[in-house]
Amino acid sequence: MTEERGRRPGNPQTRDAIMEAAVGSFTAKGYAQTTIRGVARTAGVDPALVMHFFGSKDGLFASAIRQSMPIEGLAASFDGDLGDLGLRLATRYLSLWDDPERGARMAAILHAAAATPAAADLLKELMRQELVRPLATLLEPEHAESRALLAATQLIGVAMLRYVLRMEPLTSMPTDQLAATIAPTLQRYLTGADSFATTGEGR
Amino acid sequence: MTEERGRRPGNPQTRDAIMEAAVGSFTAKGYAQTTIRGVARTAGVDPALVMHFFGSKDGLFASAIRQSMPIEGLAASFDGDLGDLGLRLATRYLSLWDDPERGARMAAILHAAAATPAAADLLKELMRQELVRPLATLLEPEHAESRALLAATQLIGVAMLRYVLRMEPLTSMPTDQLAATIAPTLQRYLTGADSFATTGEGR
Repeated sequence: MTEERGRRPGNPQTRDAIMEAAVGSFTAKGYAQTTIRGVARTAGVDPALVMHFFGSKDGLFASAIRQSMPIEGLAASFDGDLGDLGLRLATRYLSLWDDPERGARMAAILHAAAATPAAADLLKELMRQELVRPLATLLEPEHAESRALLAATQLIGVAMLRYVLRMEPLTSMPTDQLAATIAPTLQRYLTGADSFATTGEGR
Repeated sequence: MTEERGRRPGNPQTRDAIMEAAVGSFTAKGYAQTTIRGVARTAGVDPALVMHFFGSKDGLFASAIRQSMPIEGLAASFDGDLGDLGLRLATRYLSLWDDPERGARMAAILHAAAATPAAADLLKELMRQELVRPLATLLEPEHAESRALLAATQLIGVAMLRYVLRMEPLTSMPTDQLAATIAPTLQRYLTGADSFATTGEGR
């Protein structure tokens, strides 16, 4: 760290400056085009300091995901009565995306992750560890992870069409109406008795 | 068309060769990096012939989407009893994705579309014209397009997690079981009386 310019390694603002440069680079240029050296240059620090804080480009991207995706905000909706989990989850998820600035950052990170398999794997792993598994622990153990993933399919599909592709009239549907519409789907996947009928005769 | 090399403009195989080169380029290099000239070179034809058949790079991409996405195959499931539409749609959609070669091509085209706004707009427009609107015409006119789009959110979310991100145990869930699990969701969005409750009190 002998070449650092202007910023102190021990300063938390240094870490913040690196993170800000990293999120900016990943969202503007994508995962493949982002380099430790370029992020260091933008943040005004030595590349070794980026490595010191984040370990690798993958570590930097994982932190950028955490920084951009309100994982804890969503997980906070897990607490409470299991019978209302679908509506709580839908309401919280939509309200997180509804914030225009946060929504744009989330879409940009998803976009960066989608473009590079290594980045997609990091996002997947983080989603599984911090959202799917914690959600699954609340459910009946049999099929718990499948149930959590099924709920995730509905949430991700809504984000794709409403916030990323912005297809009308879905984009302008009031949030509480949309939450009330998808909540029974989430609830059925998470706790419904019929979600894992083993025959294909179904409904 | 004076410079064409080796292929005849009137030959349907010439159009097929151009289309094959175009799908290959869009899926391998993405929309932004694909050029009329490069596609023409791969197909062994003059660039003017590509323009003659497809009009523009956008026209070429729209045709590549049609070629790669089994739009008619999915729309065929619209015919039949409205009370079974959810299950027919789920079953057909999953079976189209389940074919490994077709599924990989579909994922690659989605990927190409996701990376460039202009390409995403073309995909969106095609989806709306050829799937969302035809599906909506089968439904109660009020909210018909919203209902069709809600069904699309569930279908797209399943494709993302099961086929694109390949998250287990969703990827190895038997097709008929998954179809039976998501069919009631689709059916409720498409024809359910409660899908458009106007209050946020919901369930």
